[in-house]
Amino acid sequence: MRPSGRKTDQMRKISFERNFSKHAEGSCLVKFGDTHVLCTASLEDKTPPWLRNSGKGWVTAEYGMLPRATGERMKREAAAGKQGGRTQEIQRLIGRSLRAVVDLEALGERQITIDCDVIQADGGTRTASITGGWIALHDCLKWMEARNMVKVDRVLKDHVAAISCGVFATQPVIDLDYLEDSAAETDANFVMTGSGAIVEIQGTAEGTPFTEDEFLTLMRLARNGIGELVTLQKQAIL
Amino acid sequence: MRPSGRKTDQMRKISFERNFSKHAEGSCLVKFGDTHVLCTASLEDKTPPWLRNSGKGWVTAEYGMLPRATGERMKREAAAGKQGGRTQEIQRLIGRSLRAVVDLEALGERQITIDCDVIQADGGTRTASITGGWIALHDCLKWMEARNMVKVDRVLKDHVAAISCGVFATQPVIDLDYLEDSAAETDANFVMTGSGAIVEIQGTAEGTPFTEDEFLTLMRLARNGIGELVTLQKQAIL
Amino acid sequence: MRPSGRKTDQMRKISFERNFSKHAEGSCLVKFGDTHVLCTASLEDKTPPWLRNSGKGWVTAEYGMLPRATGERMKREAAAGKQGGRTQEIQRLIGRSLRAVVDLEALGERQITIDCDVIQADGGTRTASITGGWIALHDCLKWMEARNMVKVDRVLKDHVAAISCGVFATQPVIDLDYLEDSAAETDANFVMTGSGAIVEIQGTAEGTPFTEDEFLTLMRLARNGIGELVTLQKQAIL
Amino acid sequence: MRPSGRKTDQMRKISFERNFSKHAEGSCLVKFGDTHVLCTASLEDKTPPWLRNSGKGWVTAEYGMLPRATGERMKREAAAGKQGGRTQEIQRLIGRSLRAVVDLEALGERQITIDCDVIQADGGTRTASITGGWIALHDCLKWMEARNMVKVDRVLKDHVAAISCGVFATQPVIDLDYLEDSAAETDANFVMTGSGAIVEIQGTAEGTPFTEDEFLTLMRLARNGIGELVTLQKQAIL
Amino acid sequence: MRPSGRKTDQMRKISFERNFSKHAEGSCLVKFGDTHVLCTASLEDKTPPWLRNSGKGWVTAEYGMLPRATGERMKREAAAGKQGGRTQEIQRLIGRSLRAVVDLEALGERQITIDCDVIQADGGTRTASITGGWIALHDCLKWMEARNMVKVDRVLKDHVAAISCGVFATQPVIDLDYLEDSAAETDANFVMTGSGAIVEIQGTAEGTPFTEDEFLTLMRLARNGIGELVTLQKQAIL
Amino acid sequence: MRPSGRKTDQMRKISFERNFSKHAEGSCLVKFGDTHVLCTASLEDKTPPWLRNSGKGWVTAEYGMLPRATGERMKREAAAGKQGGRTQEIQRLIGRSLRAVVDLEALGERQITIDCDVIQADGGTRTASITGGWIALHDCLKWMEARNMVKVDRVLKDHVAAISCGVFATQPVIDLDYLEDSAAETDANFVMTGSGAIVEIQGTAEGTPFTEDEFLTLMRLARNGIGELVTLQKQAIL
Repeated sequence: MRPSGRKTDQMRKISFERNFSKHAEGSCLVKFGDTHVLCTASLEDKTPPWLRNSGKGWVTAEYGMLPRATGERMKREAAAGKQGGRTQEIQRLIGRSLRAVVDLEALGERQITIDCDVIQADGGTRTASITGGWIALHDCLKWMEARNMVKVDRVLKDHVAAISCGVFATQPVIDLDYLEDSAAETDANFVMTGSGAIVEIQGTAEGTPFTEDEFLTLMRLARNGIGELVTLQKQAIL
Repeated sequence: MRPSGRKTDQMRKISFERNFSKHAEGSCLVKFGDTHVLCTASLEDKTPPWLRNSGKGWVTAEYGMLPRATGERMKREAAAGKQGGRTQEIQRLIGRSLRAVVDLEALGERQITIDCDVIQADGGTRTASITGGWIALHDCLKWMEARNMVKVDRVLKDHVAAISCGVFATQPVIDLDYLEDSAAETDANFVMTGSGAIVEIQGTAEGTPFTEDEFLTLMRLARNGIGELVTLQKQAIL
Repeated sequence: MRPSGRKTDQMRKISFERNFSKHAEGSCLVKFGDTHVLCTASLEDKTPPWLRNSGKGWVTAEYGMLPRATGERMKREAAAGKQGGRTQEIQRLIGRSLRAVVDLEALGERQITIDCDVIQADGGTRTASITGGWIALHDCLKWMEARNMVKVDRVLKDHVAAISCGVFATQPVIDLDYLEDSAAETDANFVMTGSGAIVEIQGTAEGTPFTEDEFLTLMRLARNGIGELVTLQKQAIL
Repeated sequence: MRPSGRKTDQMRKISFERNFSKHAEGSCLVKFGDTHVLCTASLEDKTPPWLRNSGKGWVTAEYGMLPRATGERMKREAAAGKQGGRTQEIQRLIGRSLRAVVDLEALGERQITIDCDVIQADGGTRTASITGGWIALHDCLKWMEARNMVKVDRVLKDHVAAISCGVFATQPVIDLDYLEDSAAETDANFVMTGSGAIVEIQGTAEGTPFTEDEFLTLMRLARNGIGELVTLQKQAIL
Repeated sequence: MRPSGRKTDQMRKISFERNFSKHAEGSCLVKFGDTHVLCTASLEDKTPPWLRNSGKGWVTAEYGMLPRATGERMKREAAAGKQGGRTQEIQRLIGRSLRAVVDLEALGERQITIDCDVIQADGGTRTASITGGWIALHDCLKWMEARNMVKVDRVLKDHVAAISCGVFATQPVIDLDYLEDSAAETDANFVMTGSGAIVEIQGTAEGTPFTEDEFLTLMRLARNGIGELVTLQKQAIL
Repeated sequence: MRPSGRKTDQMRKISFERNFSKHAEGSCLVKFGDTHVLCTASLEDKTPPWLRNSGKGWVTAEYGMLPRATGERMKREAAAGKQGGRTQEIQRLIGRSLRAVVDLEALGERQITIDCDVIQADGGTRTASITGGWIALHDCLKWMEARNMVKVDRVLKDHVAAISCGVFATQPVIDLDYLEDSAAETDANFVMTGSGAIVEIQGTAEGTPFTEDEFLTLMRLARNGIGELVTLQKQAIL
């Protein structure tokens, strides 16, 4: 029995609020239940140094948490003077995941930065960031298309979305909330495209190592969930 | 004529959304027009080191801006590795302003941290932070009162609110938005209590220095505006 | 009764020692009683990046305290690895105050950095820095005039000087020394030009908030004191 | 055809040189072909603060690369003033992987730090670090057993080893060297125990996302390779 | 011919201004010609952690330069966020030199910090710092003696002073000023006690390596100069 | 009697292992007994900014210690976020020492970085670094000569090597190991060229200051030892 009463293959209520931010070229407040992440896309008319004169652009991501997004207040990273290892890991993952569905040449020598700021956290902030970040990226490309800078369909090759699965109280379940996440024996994040291809898998045994069968069960749960997320993304950008 | 069409003594639409955050002991999303600041109050059961065994508590504030809260994306301070001078100035101001209406002995040996994170910026983020921070602080004390830790009325001696005034296109105006702020010749922030006493005045001539008369006009505008803000705070906490 | 025996409207003994430094283009050791600040002006033949090709120059300030300028040794900021919030606030104030009387176009694409280093502190270091910094800036411009780089009178539009006032033991007094400053209920710093216009006002209630009347009394005291400071500046640069 | 002429399921020559370091409680120079990593285990007689009085110990890891371990000299992280995101990701992975086979209660309130320093890099430094780190950890526990501090068999529950697999030139291959790694379309790191359970999976599509079948092929390759690595570990500690 | 017209064995005019600082337990403005260093001694009633409960005290030094102490303004180390290698080298040298004549047990569990801040630089700042730092240390111990905390003669075992010598235009000369220092082929700093024993020697060939004979000539010059410095120290503390 | 049983003028077993690193243009694992330092030379085709368009090149050094090179694990400098004062002192010394025998004009506008990383420490790491660094530098120049970039003999004017001497248990001894170093009353490092000229002398009295005679004895020991080191360098590069 899950603390939230959800079924093992039931994700939390998912919503996307587009154009949340007045200033950004694309933005989306994504909610996976009580996990709320503001994703904004910022366009810059130049690439990072290592791509200059390559004809290619870049998509990168930064991730942050408001200090009281969590149950206990965390130290503000700006005050601490550096981003922690977890933050860096997550923002690298978001960037890689989004780039997997972007044609960087079709983007041209520009950079889009996806900022994912967690307003409220209840587990699954990285998967919400990827899923909502895709919407912000899409809307930024729409903004560019309206100015004849790119064709959305040539730059954005597919959807990308992500979900966590894990073994909670011996049961494989999807979309772990904080209570489940902190008690889970095993925890895996899956990032997949709209066509079902795998972009990234991160599986970690927090306690006991897991078997291949357990892992395959989690992957099946994830495949279904990501299918639903892609459907929701499609409805959101209609 | 103000860009927004407002009258010289007309503030933007102000709103307070209490309990915005699931986790914090007190929280408030404050809006001054398109300036949106999330204020959370976090209670800790110990004071900073210099107050240990003094019988007194402490109220402090931290301030941050999401990178794309503004028209152009700003570098994330956590990634830059330090908080800029402007950030530090503002968070020190918020902390001093709130402490001016708190009885630190009645609070007891505890610390309340008010985090003010700007979700969207359109001028006046520091005055919105103080005004909304007071609500978050109040609600945190209510939370404590419900647990028999303090009496709100003994800790919180008065309201405190803040507003900016400035000379825009030769006219003294209240509650400058970003367009006005960047063009203003003179700019002053006023922090006052519910009973009309002055907590903090910061007046700066960006271009031409200003006369005492101009300054007094700004102070009169501020006094009226802060009166309204306090009324709105009172309605909000009913 | 003030600890120093001064009258309420009596400033400490003020002196300016020009050309204190062998190397700087302009320099001044300014003393407000036991507060001693070395102000040097350093000319660079280029502007900060954001003014390049704008035809305008820049005046900026940096502030520091020797570790044992104070009663208790303070941690050296260079060893701590960063400038504290107070330092940044003060150096931003000094820079803004001096720029208020400089015609940046007449200066041309150059930068002048005013370093204000507190050799000994006894309250009022920021106001001494502004008042002495003006002398260093003036002498730097004289140095440039002697080399046909600028006309002093076209760049430097007016004097600027600063003083603190506060309510000490219920009495409004001018030019607080450390003993008064640490006990004052209210504390305001005023920066004004030679012609009496206001450049900056920073009023803070350390304890009880203050009334408008109290504030106006402090402003009157400041206006007189700054008048005297400007007279002393004029004598110093004869 | 692999650049090294290896078969698709053939790992590089693996070797472990135990007791490489005179000072460390356990140490091992591990070589996966031209990738050489020095792993040392350092015992401290106290736990990190969050475990104090918990009866439990801790195993953690740090990772570094000598600046010229690579084809182009990289900036020294100590000189840069911080560890990069990649470094943090890797050292967190090593730590988690080793802890998966350690009984922290049986270790008692002590900390063992595994330092993995890459002397020479040719791809697969993180998997070599985990595999060699296990030897260093084992030898540290032996050192402790000789002093009656622990029983090795009670603390160390199993072997752990790691290998990378990827799709290079459309072929799934094991143990990618640098040439393969930089050209691979897909890249996955697997960490498994001696009994074949999964500790960590990290799969990343660098270019085209991959299918579930491709992934399962990589996992099969990894399972066999890790089996061999565990056999080599067993021979090494005889 | 030396640029200053001095003879090869002639030091610059040396002076010590004791009690320069109102607050410090000991202080001295030392001048070696145009090199001016403010040395302050600050007493703390506790030792660094590694000496706790050892019965011994500690003497340490910090060194800094005002940004415009030099011909060209240098970046402020506090703003740069760290102390440079040269600064650290010098402050470690000052500390070691002073400790060489201190009986740390007779000092008791206290720390004295000697801050050496260069107000104006013209070569030889580190040797001036050591020579003047000894005066500040002596006066701090006098201050302590007056409070029955220590006996000066039991803590301070001897004088210590320092001078630079170098080969300038093929001539061995003493007490190099900036012009000589920047052109010197060889440069050596000597630290010796009142009784003529050697505390520290740092000889560096900037250009051509030097012979043993050249080095011995420099050491003879230094021995005489330090003899004079000690005489001046004795007069200063009368 | 020395702890190692060596005679007072007997150095430890010295060895140079050239081409230790697959990637570097020059490399050498140098051993002075149990002190093992990996020296690599990395060539870059540009100079530091201050030499641009000067026709001159640069040789610089960086120094590091693996955390467990020592008896007790030291904090990793990359994790601490900065290089300590000792590290900076040593790497500046290595760079100066090597530059003393390099013709920077003959090198041309290129930079060679000598990284000296201590794999295992047992005293004398800085002198081993200089002595082994010379081999790495030599081999880098050979690599360049093979590509017609320079003539080794025109760039490298002489050998340079270094050794420490000290007074241990009242006896002057050469090449102190860790046990001797930590107990030595006096400690001096000598850097000399193949022709016997002095490049750098650093003598420090850890406890009692030393006499000139003692110092001269140490210098004689060093001269002989460095003669041997240069002979070994010559054999190594045959």
